[in-house]
Amino acid sequence: MARIVMKFGGTSVANIERIRHAARHVKREVDAGNEVAVVVSAMSGKTNELVNWCTDAAPMHDTREYDAVVASGEQVTAGLMSIVLQDLGVQSRSYAGWQVPIHTDDTHGSARITGIDPHNLDERMSDGWVPVVTGFQGISDKGRITTLGRGGSDTSAVAVAAAVKADRCDIYTDVDGVYTTDPRIAPRARRLERVSFEEMLEMASLGAKVLQTRSVELAMAQGVRLVVRSSFDDPDAANAPGSDWGATGTLVCDEDEIMEKQIVSGVTLAKAEAKVTLRKVKDRPGVAAAVFGPLADAHIVVDMIVQNISDDGAHTDITFTIPDSEFDKAMRVLKAAPGLEYESISGSKGGAKISVVGVGMRSHAGVASSMFKALADKGINIQLITTSEIKTSVLIDEEYAELAVRALHTYYGLDKAED
Amino acid sequence: MARIVMKFGGTSVANIERIRHAARHVKREVDAGNEVAVVVSAMSGKTNELVNWCTDAAPMHDTREYDAVVASGEQVTAGLMSIVLQDLGVQSRSYAGWQVPIHTDDTHGSARITGIDPHNLDERMSDGWVPVVTGFQGISDKGRITTLGRGGSDTSAVAVAAAVKADRCDIYTDVDGVYTTDPRIAPRARRLERVSFEEMLEMASLGAKVLQTRSVELAMAQGVRLVVRSSFDDPDAANAPGSDWGATGTLVCDEDEIMEKQIVSGVTLAKAEAKVTLRKVKDRPGVAAAVFGPLADAHIVVDMIVQNISDDGAHTDITFTIPDSEFDKAMRVLKAAPGLEYESISGSKGGAKISVVGVGMRSHAGVASSMFKALADKGINIQLITTSEIKTSVLIDEEYAELAVRALHTYYGLDKAED
Repeated sequence: MARIVMKFGGTSVANIERIRHAARHVKREVDAGNEVAVVVSAMSGKTNELVNWCTDAAPMHDTREYDAVVASGEQVTAGLMSIVLQDLGVQSRSYAGWQVPIHTDDTHGSARITGIDPHNLDERMSDGWVPVVTGFQGISDKGRITTLGRGGSDTSAVAVAAAVKADRCDIYTDVDGVYTTDPRIAPRARRLERVSFEEMLEMASLGAKVLQTRSVELAMAQGVRLVVRSSFDDPDAANAPGSDWGATGTLVCDEDEIMEKQIVSGVTLAKAEAKVTLRKVKDRPGVAAAVFGPLADAHIVVDMIVQNISDDGAHTDITFTIPDSEFDKAMRVLKAAPGLEYESISGSKGGAKISVVGVGMRSHAGVASSMFKALADKGINIQLITTSEIKTSVLIDEEYAELAVRALHTYYGLDKAED
Repeated sequence: MARIVMKFGGTSVANIERIRHAARHVKREVDAGNEVAVVVSAMSGKTNELVNWCTDAAPMHDTREYDAVVASGEQVTAGLMSIVLQDLGVQSRSYAGWQVPIHTDDTHGSARITGIDPHNLDERMSDGWVPVVTGFQGISDKGRITTLGRGGSDTSAVAVAAAVKADRCDIYTDVDGVYTTDPRIAPRARRLERVSFEEMLEMASLGAKVLQTRSVELAMAQGVRLVVRSSFDDPDAANAPGSDWGATGTLVCDEDEIMEKQIVSGVTLAKAEAKVTLRKVKDRPGVAAAVFGPLADAHIVVDMIVQNISDDGAHTDITFTIPDSEFDKAMRVLKAAPGLEYESISGSKGGAKISVVGVGMRSHAGVASSMFKALADKGINIQLITTSEIKTSVLIDEEYAELAVRALHTYYGLDKAED
């Protein structure tokens, strides 16, 4: 017997038929003797519809009212899910965020969960009921409905799992797990059986959009084991005996739970990256702020940042990457930035950032150099390099992106066996 | 300065453009120095969509979950209305039923309001804010969302008006008031300036579907003055100086507020009425129950009922009317009813019920007889007659329905002056 929180995203509850399919996954877990709570998103498309109505009503609108409007989407799904579960013979009731209650701060539109009272959910689950909780929302201490921002339903699920001390939190989505790289680029990409929170964080923020970064951070902080799995699997065949969390999916867990650590667990790719270089910026305290402050004010998100000392020791070269779409704007902003002295500014669009991620890097020297060698073997030129504890990233010409991903995927032994 | 509750129905908030138009009515009242609370329905069509989803999820479903799903419709409109009001410079916030709170019993799907805490609304209105309240719903003492059943938004508005001691409750709808009869039948029908609660009740239940009977009953019990008016009027021209409640609309109020009482205020028509006659039913206590019990069990709503003593004094003839669509079913039910003894059963479809309604009837004898004479003058045969204190109804052949309505409308002086 386990205690499980099951979260279903928008595509998994897009219509009554899909909700019924999702409910069969829930019934399977209940029939297996587990205590289950469900967290649901709005039907896919519904949140956009509601958001658009708010924008049509007034482009600049009160986020408190926006929240009241948009939160209705999950309320609908939660009620429908409970109806369907009851129809399958599973005792169930829905809970809006305020009914649980899920307490949040009052940063409407992007609120943070401050606490969940587990009493109601605990009691129901212990009695064999399945509470169905609206994701994405809560209630402020002023008694108003709040929403957590896009992707907040994953975060809701993790927070609920932590509150009811669940053994794991299953995130049902439209992919069947976390892959070593994008299978559309490298057909021999493998589904990972396990991946650590840290690796997942690096991979999510690098473009493997399976889980919201925020929910992974919360899961790591709260020690909630996540399973990423597909809601489109056959509900009656999805649990294999002997498996820890079911036949399919990827377990996202603490590093300690992963016995055989891969040096590299995944290769990620982000295209359309532009680079900008400022040469001979006067090297004094505050120079980085003088460069990146104006960019932040212009809402330009900077990705890689590299700073080198230049020849004379009094100046420095700074290079950073931004999305191609922000390139022209960034150039304008920097040329107009007050108090920023440099010799020249240059840059170009059309880069690709390739990263290799793996907790095993910590204990294995030479991952970076082996990566550079693997790329050199294919004749791929490296423009920029940044590293973190479990990740090494390079910027290369976009033309070589797929070649680089496949080369590294093979080089680090990630390819699945030939069929 | 007055305190006003303004209620907008589904067609008046069907899209953002309509909501904006409705909001301009609200702004007009606020600009005139009034304290205003708004009650809204769901966008037209939305409630049906939500109801259908519940039915698709499971034909027999938990009404508590149904309520959670269906109540979301008004939540959306209330938030959007507040956004639009703010955009027009009117301070506003939305309140879901549970936030007011509007307390109800826990008869989910058709709950009754048990009390409204006026504190929140009172405070906002006194501060010059416009609270926008979700109609149709409340919260049970178990903390679950309840709905009041179809047409419940009118009832919500009246209950809110009573709770905040409003001077009047304006029901904005797609017609511009209550008419002496259906203008499609009698082109010279006039809009009534005032009509009493009692007359409105008789007219509403007789088919003038402007206001839900239940909301009129509540308004009468609580002494809430109602105004029926059109949301499609020009918001900036809708208040004439010197008028009590605006240039348009019909005031539904206590009889005492109506100085010059009409003997007849309106003529109503209900077509497709079938009549059923049971001859020589054994006249003993409980005979009516033996007839109408089985019909009620079969969910057949009976309208007119007439009972006469037959010749021998030991038997009685009973005639009643039902919708044409229920005729065959009613005949089957009665033929199969246990313990019901009668000589013969007969009936026919295709009747029309014509009623004249007016509080003035109380003090004026001879309304019924003058009605019969007016119909006889046109050669119209009367099949059944029923009377109440302020209403006289007759059943006639459907063919003569429009002729009868126009004749009575003219006879009682209800025609508007020629243009």
